[in-house]
Amino acid sequence: MDKNLSFISLGGIGTVTRNMYVYEFGNEILLIDCGLGFADETMLGVDFLLPDISYLLKIVKEGKKIVGMLITHGHEDHMGALPFILPQLPHFPIYATSFTAALANEKLAQYNLPKVIQPYPFGKEITVGNFSGKFLYVTHSIPDTAHIVIKTPVGIFYHGSDFKFDLTPYDKKQTDFQGIGAVGAEGVRCLFSECLGSEREGYTLSEDSLTTPFEDEMRNCRGKFIVTTYSSNISRINQVTAIARKLHRKVGFVGRSLMKAVGVAREQGLIALKKDDEIPIESIRQYKDSELLLFVAGSQGQENSALTRIINGEHKNVQLRGDDVIVFSADPIPGNEMSIYALVDNLSKMGIRVLYSDISYHKFHVSGHGSSQELLQLMALVKPRYLLPISGTFRQMAAYKRLGKRFGYHESDILVPMSGQQVIFTQDGVHFGHKIPIRHVYVDEVSGEEIEHFVLRDRQKISQEGVIAIIIEVDEESGSLSGKPEVVAKGFATKDSQEIELFIPQVLENVFSRRKPVTDWQYLRKQVREAVEKKLFAEFKRRPLVLPVIIEI
Amino acid sequence: MDKNLSFISLGGIGTVTRNMYVYEFGNEILLIDCGLGFADETMLGVDFLLPDISYLLKIVKEGKKIVGMLITHGHEDHMGALPFILPQLPHFPIYATSFTAALANEKLAQYNLPKVIQPYPFGKEITVGNFSGKFLYVTHSIPDTAHIVIKTPVGIFYHGSDFKFDLTPYDKKQTDFQGIGAVGAEGVRCLFSECLGSEREGYTLSEDSLTTPFEDEMRNCRGKFIVTTYSSNISRINQVTAIARKLHRKVGFVGRSLMKAVGVAREQGLIALKKDDEIPIESIRQYKDSELLLFVAGSQGQENSALTRIINGEHKNVQLRGDDVIVFSADPIPGNEMSIYALVDNLSKMGIRVLYSDISYHKFHVSGHGSSQELLQLMALVKPRYLLPISGTFRQMAAYKRLGKRFGYHESDILVPMSGQQVIFTQDGVHFGHKIPIRHVYVDEVSGEEIEHFVLRDRQKISQEGVIAIIIEVDEESGSLSGKPEVVAKGFATKDSQEIELFIPQVLENVFSRRKPVTDWQYLRKQVREAVEKKLFAEFKRRPLVLPVIIEI
Repeated sequence: MDKNLSFISLGGIGTVTRNMYVYEFGNEILLIDCGLGFADETMLGVDFLLPDISYLLKIVKEGKKIVGMLITHGHEDHMGALPFILPQLPHFPIYATSFTAALANEKLAQYNLPKVIQPYPFGKEITVGNFSGKFLYVTHSIPDTAHIVIKTPVGIFYHGSDFKFDLTPYDKKQTDFQGIGAVGAEGVRCLFSECLGSEREGYTLSEDSLTTPFEDEMRNCRGKFIVTTYSSNISRINQVTAIARKLHRKVGFVGRSLMKAVGVAREQGLIALKKDDEIPIESIRQYKDSELLLFVAGSQGQENSALTRIINGEHKNVQLRGDDVIVFSADPIPGNEMSIYALVDNLSKMGIRVLYSDISYHKFHVSGHGSSQELLQLMALVKPRYLLPISGTFRQMAAYKRLGKRFGYHESDILVPMSGQQVIFTQDGVHFGHKIPIRHVYVDEVSGEEIEHFVLRDRQKISQEGVIAIIIEVDEESGSLSGKPEVVAKGFATKDSQEIELFIPQVLENVFSRRKPVTDWQYLRKQVREAVEKKLFAEFKRRPLVLPVIIEI
Repeated sequence: MDKNLSFISLGGIGTVTRNMYVYEFGNEILLIDCGLGFADETMLGVDFLLPDISYLLKIVKEGKKIVGMLITHGHEDHMGALPFILPQLPHFPIYATSFTAALANEKLAQYNLPKVIQPYPFGKEITVGNFSGKFLYVTHSIPDTAHIVIKTPVGIFYHGSDFKFDLTPYDKKQTDFQGIGAVGAEGVRCLFSECLGSEREGYTLSEDSLTTPFEDEMRNCRGKFIVTTYSSNISRINQVTAIARKLHRKVGFVGRSLMKAVGVAREQGLIALKKDDEIPIESIRQYKDSELLLFVAGSQGQENSALTRIINGEHKNVQLRGDDVIVFSADPIPGNEMSIYALVDNLSKMGIRVLYSDISYHKFHVSGHGSSQELLQLMALVKPRYLLPISGTFRQMAAYKRLGKRFGYHESDILVPMSGQQVIFTQDGVHFGHKIPIRHVYVDEVSGEEIEHFVLRDRQKISQEGVIAIIIEVDEESGSLSGKPEVVAKGFATKDSQEIELFIPQVLENVFSRRKPVTDWQYLRKQVREAVEKKLFAEFKRRPLVLPVIIEI
């Protein structure tokens, strides 16, 4: 039997998202996390990316056994791929801390899958085959985040997923520093550490630094006070609603993802807001603007979000007025900058006070990820034999390596594998193993607010699905459709192509006949793409690549 | 006769670039600046934007006279549109400070236009019709930057274009604070102030804060020390070459734009580097890596730049080695982030030490734009009756307005016009006038390193020029072409379409048969687009929209 432990990332090294890790020992496999990746602007017509489980399927087929999966926390890039991946794998036990398990089960239920994630307490060992795991509490931007101590016949490994060391967190729940130190004292072979903040010197600011700016702004606001943040940032929601209570504002939640996350958190006893202080969004007209705090989903400028619809004047319950204040209490996820700044610019044009991360004199968001000092602090507590950065781009991995060297590690003890490269821990050393191919695997959701359908596909098949380019002329000032759109369909039967070229102008008419013309081209492009995709799926059950080109005239 | 002064921006309000301003009094027109705009990722197939001079052409046709143009400084977004705009206008005198005039004339010569920009000293009045202008020295990221004092029959206006207040600039040339104060004491009607840094609290760091980090890094570097910055950042070049001299490194310049800017600066006596310490790039092999400092053009990740070619292993004189250090001494211009980070990630993957703006523990670049304190300081020196932010996005204009209110201005005295809106200064007040349409005007350069041709066009004509979509399958690991590309041509005669679909695969073969396969998809897309555009222009003298879609398999 192979006496070594092999470690590999199925989401690829050199990326922040798509977290999924395989620990193999002998015949057994332990999995950590199962997260989505987010598409950027260059991935035309794609919604999400998945970890590539080809290698996993192969070794399972060859007779290896998945003994279990542990999930570190409830963010999409750590557990959002479960509904897509689990149906492809044999059954095995899955454990997570309480809130993480509740969110993940909720996610599975959305896709009509059984709620198989088992909640498990912090600090208690879970035995799965030859492995054992233990969740240690760390602070992050979502409750119940864990680092995982993994004991194996080849030694102890510390899976240090996303974290910060907030010494004054809003919910007073402190990182289990003593627990981490105790594991370190037992002797750790390798610390797998997140490295997103490795480029930033110093400590990441504590959440408590946000209380004063929020309170000052809310006190001075004479209209609605509107906050957008990640739906799962429960402590931020508690922090801001406490201020609202003090200043006699009622709280409303706008947007499905947000209401869902708050619902799950409430069941877990994590929401401090009293039921009396919350109002349903339909009844906000019964209150003066100055009596309202609204949390709105869509901090990343997503085209379907409540926030984008509110700003574009398309939301049925929430209309903006001049006295309103909007706070972006979240950093842009790389790739979303242009969508977010389009919203901020539109609000500025309307004369609405908008607060966001580039305004440096007040802070309305702090990162959930530790900076250099915290990454060094984790090294100092764990004192592992080897370091290996995970969940970061190549430049962040390189910055982490420099940190390790500053700490005193020898270059050869800081492992920076290539994407798909196995890292093999033997009884007395470590070396790189095979490099398996890690492909990009894409998921598209044909979606409105409801998930109606999803397509799991290889990018290879896109050209088989067809390509449709649509060239639209739009009046630059008014945002209205000008002239007849040009449609180019490729990869369809002639009859179908003709049909498509006929019905697309009608689909566009519908998009453009909405109440209010839009001059945000990104938003418009996405609306067009989505309307066309829906129609094509309805007609042909196909998902071609739709490329809308907007020409301003 | 109209006794009012009218002010309007032809580049549009709400944008940082495309600076061009019209001051009208009676029958006379004074112009300030004539700058390019930069295209972002959403403007498929476009290189640059121009100010829209339709309004100017109209009033000239109606009998108004352009009495002169003054240029504030030599950055592309303030003078880069001259070769495109001047040929459309009648003759009038154009003045700029010495280095600005030299750069602008060099630019005109590139397009075979006469060198009509007249150098004019700081502090001396220029009379042009009923206007007079005076250049005041301010610090910025290019030598000889000016603010302009404009005297008119309706009072004094202060045109406060791009600046920072660097109290310890590397070249020791200080802002003319006393001159600014003296103008303020005369009574200024309106301060037109740049506002790019209005979101940042405090002062922008001085250039002298960069000396120590550069010296430390260069001393520790055992390979080539490579710096990329804006070509026109002459003081940065002097600052770093002085360190190189101390540490016995010879200096080479790589990239046409950079060599041109340095050449112009040297003629102006602005380059401190001794001729003996400079070496031509062809002879760098005669030196050890540790004896070299190279300045390389391409800090924005431009696809044709020397830097991109070096990193992709395609430069004939410069090859990277493991000991080299690359410093990005420039901030990303919004829209360029993805191209720049692709380069940084590639370098990190190769194990090359790369220093860039997200690394917070060392600074290798400071902004050329003032932050809040400097914008407030300018208000305090000028003490104008009205404020009007220019050269910023809507959110930066909104932030500037908040600064003005903090300073003590009444809301109604801070003018924030819409795009295309005239601002009319009467003898005793101000009001908004007509809103003229400001369209987007695009320029495309069919270019290699040489400017071979440019096309000035209305976006309206794109669909008339045709659209070509190319779907290419590329091996994700190796970057090599896989399978036959699909080509969709629209808007061409059937015969031409067939011809295009035949020759494009050959063009692609050429792109992919280069020495080294590339896995940077952005770079690849741009290379494909460019190669296809060149071929199409050669064959048909047409510039269709070329949309390469890269599919990783």
